[in-house]
Amino acid sequence: MAAEFLGTLLLVFFGVGAAVLAAEYVGSLGIALTFGFVMLALAYAIGPISGSHVNPAVTLGMFLAGRLDLDLAVKYWIAQLVGGIAGAALLFLVAKQVPGLETSGSFGSNGFGDRSAVHINTGGAFVAELILTFLFVYTVLAVTHKVAVVGFDGLPIGIALAVVHLVGIPLTGTSVNPARSLGPAVFAGGAALTQLWLFIVAPLVGAAVAAYVHMITHPQPNRRPRREMRVS
Amino acid sequence: MAAEFLGTLLLVFFGVGAAVLAAEYVGSLGIALTFGFVMLALAYAIGPISGSHVNPAVTLGMFLAGRLDLDLAVKYWIAQLVGGIAGAALLFLVAKQVPGLETSGSFGSNGFGDRSAVHINTGGAFVAELILTFLFVYTVLAVTHKVAVVGFDGLPIGIALAVVHLVGIPLTGTSVNPARSLGPAVFAGGAALTQLWLFIVAPLVGAAVAAYVHMITHPQPNRRPRREMRVS
Amino acid sequence: MAAEFLGTLLLVFFGVGAAVLAAEYVGSLGIALTFGFVMLALAYAIGPISGSHVNPAVTLGMFLAGRLDLDLAVKYWIAQLVGGIAGAALLFLVAKQVPGLETSGSFGSNGFGDRSAVHINTGGAFVAELILTFLFVYTVLAVTHKVAVVGFDGLPIGIALAVVHLVGIPLTGTSVNPARSLGPAVFAGGAALTQLWLFIVAPLVGAAVAAYVHMITHPQPNRRPRREMRVS
Amino acid sequence: MAAEFLGTLLLVFFGVGAAVLAAEYVGSLGIALTFGFVMLALAYAIGPISGSHVNPAVTLGMFLAGRLDLDLAVKYWIAQLVGGIAGAALLFLVAKQVPGLETSGSFGSNGFGDRSAVHINTGGAFVAELILTFLFVYTVLAVTHKVAVVGFDGLPIGIALAVVHLVGIPLTGTSVNPARSLGPAVFAGGAALTQLWLFIVAPLVGAAVAAYVHMITHPQPNRRPRREMRVS
Repeated sequence: MAAEFLGTLLLVFFGVGAAVLAAEYVGSLGIALTFGFVMLALAYAIGPISGSHVNPAVTLGMFLAGRLDLDLAVKYWIAQLVGGIAGAALLFLVAKQVPGLETSGSFGSNGFGDRSAVHINTGGAFVAELILTFLFVYTVLAVTHKVAVVGFDGLPIGIALAVVHLVGIPLTGTSVNPARSLGPAVFAGGAALTQLWLFIVAPLVGAAVAAYVHMITHPQPNRRPRREMRVS
Repeated sequence: MAAEFLGTLLLVFFGVGAAVLAAEYVGSLGIALTFGFVMLALAYAIGPISGSHVNPAVTLGMFLAGRLDLDLAVKYWIAQLVGGIAGAALLFLVAKQVPGLETSGSFGSNGFGDRSAVHINTGGAFVAELILTFLFVYTVLAVTHKVAVVGFDGLPIGIALAVVHLVGIPLTGTSVNPARSLGPAVFAGGAALTQLWLFIVAPLVGAAVAAYVHMITHPQPNRRPRREMRVS
Repeated sequence: MAAEFLGTLLLVFFGVGAAVLAAEYVGSLGIALTFGFVMLALAYAIGPISGSHVNPAVTLGMFLAGRLDLDLAVKYWIAQLVGGIAGAALLFLVAKQVPGLETSGSFGSNGFGDRSAVHINTGGAFVAELILTFLFVYTVLAVTHKVAVVGFDGLPIGIALAVVHLVGIPLTGTSVNPARSLGPAVFAGGAALTQLWLFIVAPLVGAAVAAYVHMITHPQPNRRPRREMRVS
Repeated sequence: MAAEFLGTLLLVFFGVGAAVLAAEYVGSLGIALTFGFVMLALAYAIGPISGSHVNPAVTLGMFLAGRLDLDLAVKYWIAQLVGGIAGAALLFLVAKQVPGLETSGSFGSNGFGDRSAVHINTGGAFVAELILTFLFVYTVLAVTHKVAVVGFDGLPIGIALAVVHLVGIPLTGTSVNPARSLGPAVFAGGAALTQLWLFIVAPLVGAAVAAYVHMITHPQPNRRPRREMRVS
């Protein structure tokens, strides 16, 4: 749980931090790479400890795939949501030290309609977040399938998160992670909170679909004893 | 087959999606990285299941190299072409939710002449697609040669696809994959369909040349029993 | 010690070199990737020799984690500081051969207040450098924890350094490394030297926090005999 | 030899091709990544066959390190130089199919003085090429030192080539490879040929220095019997 808290904190601080502090300097491409790269680093750093979900949607997918039990999943979810808020709080603290930086606006929160760069409508945002989350969670489930190649897991996981940001930043800012959306929304307030439901529901639905499809494409070797996968 | 269908769907949705939805935000470099990165993620996610060809030209190269038989190759081709259309359909659905987005134009389809950013002529486009596909298919054939290092396959395969996009986007938008060209062309219609032949023929010729050259540069260890390579 | 000297020299020459010589051509994103990529290359090249710390903050973290003794740590620190100055000297030599290049200005040195692109204040710069260094040193400590997967260490280490630059370049130019800050400051002089203290203290504090948190999240397997970790 | 010929051809076609065909679309960052990424793909594709030197300076470094004998080195050099010209010829052929593309200018050739983007002088160009080649060849020598981790070699080798381009493109266009400079110079003619000597001599000197320093930092395990390293 400490690892999941810390990991989500760092994911939000750096990923959202690139959007809030450095967007004019590194662009959408730089923001996408920041999310992907910090995920990659976390996958190697805390992957052997907690699995480095750092995302309630990933934990849901893992739970539905029978990789961890409900008790641990709930603990992970709490750690991730608190971590997301803590990461946003830390970022808010730093951003306030930059004169003239608009920290009361969107503060890196996700959005649709007026709050989307391309003004995507609600239905489009829902479908987009669902598909984006599908790719990410499906990749996580698939590459952590065979424990033997654990050393490679971090690379495709980080790279998949970069991909979903490369496509999704103009649409919704890319959530695919309720904890990543919750943190900044708390500090942005207003419409960011009103729109938050979509960035909780759509990623969770996308993760459930990913768990289902993964079961079809990767049938058998997953049937290992459950307790083997538990994290103490 | 399910894996090849899904993989091609995702490759087209994300790769072409970056071009259609995010080109102004991430540029040609971002589009190239999206194609390469989603390929990398797919190679790790479904590579152990189907080989993650997600490209009729790769399947042709693998067939000519004796890695899979004609029966399976035909099934892969069907799954890839249907997956490419399905991915483009899903992208079309999302793109229609973005007000003012021109979805009736080129819709990420490949092109030459007037439909090339640099107005490359037909012969140039054919030679370019042939060489681009050669690099990609040759890399795939070479790195999957030795089954022992399977864990590294995804990295050079994804990176090679990024390379061919970095050079080819201004020329033709980069196909190197008939299924990637078919899907968007169906929705773009008009000249995209008229020019489609080149993006089917040139990649297949490039793949055949790659299979031939690979046989010269990587002679013996490939002579393992055919059935060993079959995917059930 | 020779490896640490050489590694720090190359890190400073290339990373700061991208900022001084190529900023207009590759942008902040390119500078961030240069720092990350040269770190990745060094991790593979000299990691098996000296551990490729090339950073006094990393060496402090490793020392606090009981991975090397004080005697060796001091030798590393000297080699790194001298290497940082040598790298900056070499870069100064090359930069002087470029007509019209302003080498008397900031010369890639780190800064805050007026010398920060976004004019971050002193406290903000300190907190930012502390968090940036935390991510980097925590990643280094975590991924080098298990000696068995040594082959993967370089990837997340280099990528983590890219991340901290993607977020930190607009704030302070990103130090996270006293040796990287010392070298250019010697040649920039003036305010770069006056502000140098922050880029020595904050990274060292960040590294100490990282060592402490790492001890909590990665408890036991680190208790191997100390002498096993010594480098002859 | 066939692999070295083909590899150098592809390195020049794609790396120089990004500069000639796509510079306006992907920028200096994209060109740097293209060189690095194609090198990475080649290292995995032909590394197990020929070592994937695709660069006379790398072959010189390997020869001085006692990894291959003079007879084979000479064969590699010939294959690389012919491959470099063939790659440039193929690129010239494609570039001529793009209307309005200035193929008679620098055609991606390296240069200094008036032919450098920042007008670096001759001495500066020589020192820069020497240091850039040092990093690249030193990385190649160091990571291929231990045969056991062969699977990781391609990553730092490709990434190191990206680094030297990120810093060197504004200075000289970055050679670090006489074969890469020779090919385009043949088609650019004029001053590209007059300046060619620097891009042959400086990389070779840099490689020799790298071989010498590598001997100091990586002393013993290299003393394996020579014939073990020969490529048949």
